[in-house]
Amino acid sequence: MSKIVVIGATGTLGQAVAAELKARHEVIEVGATRGAHQVDSTDPASVERLFQTIGKVDGVVTTTGKVHFGPLPEMTVEQFWVGLRDKLMGQINVVLAAQKYVNDGGSFTLTSGILADEPINLGVSATTVNLALEGFVRGAAIELPRGIRINVVSPTVLTESMESYAPFFRGFEPVDAKKAAQAYLRSVEGAQTGRVYRVGY
Amino acid sequence: MSKIVVIGATGTLGQAVAAELKARHEVIEVGATRGAHQVDSTDPASVERLFQTIGKVDGVVTTTGKVHFGPLPEMTVEQFWVGLRDKLMGQINVVLAAQKYVNDGGSFTLTSGILADEPINLGVSATTVNLALEGFVRGAAIELPRGIRINVVSPTVLTESMESYAPFFRGFEPVDAKKAAQAYLRSVEGAQTGRVYRVGY
Repeated sequence: MSKIVVIGATGTLGQAVAAELKARHEVIEVGATRGAHQVDSTDPASVERLFQTIGKVDGVVTTTGKVHFGPLPEMTVEQFWVGLRDKLMGQINVVLAAQKYVNDGGSFTLTSGILADEPINLGVSATTVNLALEGFVRGAAIELPRGIRINVVSPTVLTESMESYAPFFRGFEPVDAKKAAQAYLRSVEGAQTGRVYRVGY
Repeated sequence: MSKIVVIGATGTLGQAVAAELKARHEVIEVGATRGAHQVDSTDPASVERLFQTIGKVDGVVTTTGKVHFGPLPEMTVEQFWVGLRDKLMGQINVVLAAQKYVNDGGSFTLTSGILADEPINLGVSATTVNLALEGFVRGAAIELPRGIRINVVSPTVLTESMESYAPFFRGFEPVDAKKAAQAYLRSVEGAQTGRVYRVGY
């Protein structure tokens, strides 16, 4: 039984990923303000403290991250920074800090999203951040030591999120969080590295 | 005769781009510390002052940007931020500030690089930043108003840079800056938007 940390485990997607992983793994659920442990993934010191507390693990999954949605002609630099600090560096901070806590042959699984491939109005920051995460995984996969793997899951919009996001995603077929969670199992329990697992598109 | 600003015009690539553009355009050469005008593209206020000084233009080319090269197992968060602040946000700051100064049907042409597609040791930050720039262009292309276009040029390593970069790029065939500059002409004088122009690979 391996030990997998899910950071973002109190969110819609993170809950589903944690539930699926529990069938075969010890799952440590980490949230921002709830869960068995808390972390502010935008703060490297907070991430370091988390891993000092939980110790060595076999896998790290991150399903966190905010980005600002708004029209490009009015977007401020500060609004653009939100996604870089939160969704992008929040997940990269975890990899940079956690790599020494991941056992040989363990894995990282990050989260990007369909806007990497399918830009929408108001979504320029999301498209930037999601492709940046895919770039990070591409670069990190060849450098991680001790057989540690890294992949990223890029889901389409979740069924559970359509109540708030539907106006942005007309014509996009949503996917249930439980189905999106399968891609995380493929990453955690599979053997590939440097992969983008696209879900629902 | 259209008016094109080249930000990074004192660098190896920027010089070549400016030289090619001068055959048919009025070129405003902007450097960090030299050139007809100076800008610190990491500082949004400096970018705004630049465009207040030069006024309306038909095209903006950026060939700027530093990233940190180093091994992932030892990379610090602060080292990772270098590329985000400089190569990524340096170019995005220019687009955010300059969009209102670009004439109808004008263009932006940014610069990523081959490491977007071909990761190398020590290059995880470069791969992240370069794909982020390609994501920004993908997202911005559908949102820019008044027929303004945006593309990104992704060159392989330049012949002129091989003296310092050769150890990182074994087996990569370099391209002369003058040849890489042609892709900028395709972007500035062409009609496409949202494109990545890969050069030399």
